[in-house]
Amino acid sequence: MTRRAAELAQYLGLELQGDPNAPLSGAANPEDAGPEDLIYADSARQFKRAESSRAVCVLAQPNAVSSRKTVLKTANPKLAFAKAAAWLTPSDWPSASIHPTAVVAESARVAVGAAIGAYVVIEDDVVVGEETWIEPFCFVGKGSRIGARCRLHPHVTLYAHSALGNRVELHSGVVIGSDGFGYVFGEGRQWKFPQIGKIIVDDDVEVGSNTTIDRGSLGLTHIKSDTKIDNLVQVGHNVEIGEHSILVSQVGISGSTKLGKGVVVAGQAGFGDHAIVEDNAVIGGQAGILPGKVIRSGQIVWGTPARPLKRFKEQHAWFARLPELARRLEALERVAEKATEDAEK
Amino acid sequence: MTRRAAELAQYLGLELQGDPNAPLSGAANPEDAGPEDLIYADSARQFKRAESSRAVCVLAQPNAVSSRKTVLKTANPKLAFAKAAAWLTPSDWPSASIHPTAVVAESARVAVGAAIGAYVVIEDDVVVGEETWIEPFCFVGKGSRIGARCRLHPHVTLYAHSALGNRVELHSGVVIGSDGFGYVFGEGRQWKFPQIGKIIVDDDVEVGSNTTIDRGSLGLTHIKSDTKIDNLVQVGHNVEIGEHSILVSQVGISGSTKLGKGVVVAGQAGFGDHAIVEDNAVIGGQAGILPGKVIRSGQIVWGTPARPLKRFKEQHAWFARLPELARRLEALERVAEKATEDAEK
Amino acid sequence: MTRRAAELAQYLGLELQGDPNAPLSGAANPEDAGPEDLIYADSARQFKRAESSRAVCVLAQPNAVSSRKTVLKTANPKLAFAKAAAWLTPSDWPSASIHPTAVVAESARVAVGAAIGAYVVIEDDVVVGEETWIEPFCFVGKGSRIGARCRLHPHVTLYAHSALGNRVELHSGVVIGSDGFGYVFGEGRQWKFPQIGKIIVDDDVEVGSNTTIDRGSLGLTHIKSDTKIDNLVQVGHNVEIGEHSILVSQVGISGSTKLGKGVVVAGQAGFGDHAIVEDNAVIGGQAGILPGKVIRSGQIVWGTPARPLKRFKEQHAWFARLPELARRLEALERVAEKATEDAEK
Repeated sequence: MTRRAAELAQYLGLELQGDPNAPLSGAANPEDAGPEDLIYADSARQFKRAESSRAVCVLAQPNAVSSRKTVLKTANPKLAFAKAAAWLTPSDWPSASIHPTAVVAESARVAVGAAIGAYVVIEDDVVVGEETWIEPFCFVGKGSRIGARCRLHPHVTLYAHSALGNRVELHSGVVIGSDGFGYVFGEGRQWKFPQIGKIIVDDDVEVGSNTTIDRGSLGLTHIKSDTKIDNLVQVGHNVEIGEHSILVSQVGISGSTKLGKGVVVAGQAGFGDHAIVEDNAVIGGQAGILPGKVIRSGQIVWGTPARPLKRFKEQHAWFARLPELARRLEALERVAEKATEDAEK
Repeated sequence: MTRRAAELAQYLGLELQGDPNAPLSGAANPEDAGPEDLIYADSARQFKRAESSRAVCVLAQPNAVSSRKTVLKTANPKLAFAKAAAWLTPSDWPSASIHPTAVVAESARVAVGAAIGAYVVIEDDVVVGEETWIEPFCFVGKGSRIGARCRLHPHVTLYAHSALGNRVELHSGVVIGSDGFGYVFGEGRQWKFPQIGKIIVDDDVEVGSNTTIDRGSLGLTHIKSDTKIDNLVQVGHNVEIGEHSILVSQVGISGSTKLGKGVVVAGQAGFGDHAIVEDNAVIGGQAGILPGKVIRSGQIVWGTPARPLKRFKEQHAWFARLPELARRLEALERVAEKATEDAEK
Repeated sequence: MTRRAAELAQYLGLELQGDPNAPLSGAANPEDAGPEDLIYADSARQFKRAESSRAVCVLAQPNAVSSRKTVLKTANPKLAFAKAAAWLTPSDWPSASIHPTAVVAESARVAVGAAIGAYVVIEDDVVVGEETWIEPFCFVGKGSRIGARCRLHPHVTLYAHSALGNRVELHSGVVIGSDGFGYVFGEGRQWKFPQIGKIIVDDDVEVGSNTTIDRGSLGLTHIKSDTKIDNLVQVGHNVEIGEHSILVSQVGISGSTKLGKGVVVAGQAGFGDHAIVEDNAVIGGQAGILPGKVIRSGQIVWGTPARPLKRFKEQHAWFARLPELARRLEALERVAEKATEDAEK
């Protein structure tokens, strides 16, 4: 669908400078953009790059001026671009339907507006909300509840009794509610600790491909609303993650660890069990949080074991100079030796 | 099903103090427990917490005494709890059946007591044992053998000629027997080293969601009995893992590495190829074992490259004090300089 | 199929010493080989091991001489072995067929020579090339293009508009073209940055089980020809990987990072966004490349943050000697203190 620049300005509530009738049908990078693609520029440097683009319309800072482009002005062009792109290029949600190959238990309650793809299996007592889209090869275990306007990409597995809120998006290969990892060794063998707890994923959570989130062993694993999780992340049993948090790819979180709101965890960071990360803390890539550790609100930590970034940098700078420090130490030792010899003469 | 406290005491062979008729139908945390849930207390502190629970029955140390609870006494309450929970809340195993949508090759031999779910594909010459439960979307490649009472959760893949023992549990997304990773670069391109070996998973092994275990390149990949593997773990070609070992999430093991019995590997640790880890060694989280390295029996190692925990701690304590050491070194240098100047006067 | 040693010598263009009629039907390790298995020996030590094998034919260095074995001589026995094994034990590619349970959109163009397995879903406007083999439970999203002689193992997912070249092999659980990970926080919530770019995987790429490769956010994610990727690897949006590169298991590459040709990345290494790795660089296991970092052509780097291997080793050697350095520093301080005291007397 093609829109006009003025329509977009109205949708976003922004001031427009230039041609209000400029057509818009997509969103792109300045380099790849065609005339109908929207682009954005966060800085003066980026605006220069935007000006040499084939695009006609650009989201830019309020002080941006151009004789060649139609400019929509905003203090946060990237945010406006994210909103605009979703509006210009909506995903083509299917109309309500249940594919004839889907195996849906009689006791399941699937909303009339839901779209169930080929080779989906929905077990007993499942509830699926309005406009929810379940793509091929998804498995929804018995007693699970899925809210409205969710999207399960192909090959998602929900173990029995999983609960999803509204507008939850699970990418391919995601496993929700599998058994947590806990054993007691005794009498010459491993005994499985019960993994019979719950898993709740709140509204507006998105989970990346092949990520795994275990149910609680006895209590609850809880991913709170608007939290975003990347691919290949592991979330253990009884973990709690607060609202609006960001977990980058390959992060691993051990059992019973709690993350607050707005926490950002960079890629491949790992958490021992029973750690606590307070609101808005930032965990660096590959950092390691020891079991039981508390990271205070707003702290930025790095390294294994993790410590405040400033301290890590200082320590690390000296680590890089260790060969030099060792040489200086040796030089002092020679001075001291000589002084001792001189004194003994 | 509801049981009586006395029945559980008899099943576990434990002394009971309190009401032998107390009903039991589940297992829980003290905080979440209802009156019919069993709880456990490993210590005096936990027993206090248990006493304020709504639960009636508690597994506790022999010296625990309560006027309010029915107490089952044992030196290892957690182990008894694991056994009791499995007994009180057995998973509801399906009765024998082959779903009409399952595609089972004529040459496959599926035991009459097995349960084959919707949209399962079983190829030629596969053998499936008694009471084994294969859930939807599992793929069992030709010539594979699955023992008795195994459970394959939805979306498990067994490559051709994989072999599983009895009571093996594979969680969703597990891939067994995929090609190992080996190439020879020559004549301007990568040539694949043959990946035509075997994969054997012994009795009572459990494997977490989306974990991958490659077949041997020429020889054998072998996971021995009662070993437990968490989610998103990578086990390379020709790896051998001894009995009762524990591999926590996101561990990666390169080709031809051998782990002994009772080895514990914490999350995100990585192993180079041809390493050897002897029985009962413990590998710390995120540790890195160099190729060919030998970790001795019972050792606890940490860091990359991994070294004994005690040594790691000592080295790391000084690492954290590097800025201080550098300042002290500078102070000494000033003293030495002054001494030299004084001497020259 | 059984071949003769002379046929193999001719196929590889190698000199043969011994029995030209020796039969060959497989490839193995010297220890496991039967009389008809080909083996190889890269060194004099390995050749000794080869001589005590039950195998009759051995690929060995030009100077190898044996009275007991039939020897095929080559400067690169391992490379010759890889070629020979593929020739002796070809994978049994199925004949052209579309399984009756496959759901193939009418608008899809599947080459007559392709083999489509049970429960495959192929959406609108997909193109599948000659002799391509798509195994059960694969999902090919609309508008995707798959070249000739590709193999998609069970449970592969291609998101809409993915593009694969020829002879691409994707192992089970691979996800190609899922949404990249990017959000803009504003007005109290996360807004998804558009993930509407492209994904192209060139000829002769192989991708291991459960690996995930995201599409470009706006531009392109591009895996170039003959690159080999192991299991559980994460490749972010807009990443570019040059020809013939090797990515070992559990590597993670953040958005917009570029790798050159012939790059080798060892297991569990992680890359921040917008890093650049030039041709033939080698990244050590668990190394961490900071965002925006440039690794020069042919460099070998280690550690987090990554630095040249030689420098890492030197620094690390002193790290291991930190307790000793600290003791020596203390000894010097005592000497200095005593000298000061003496001077004050």
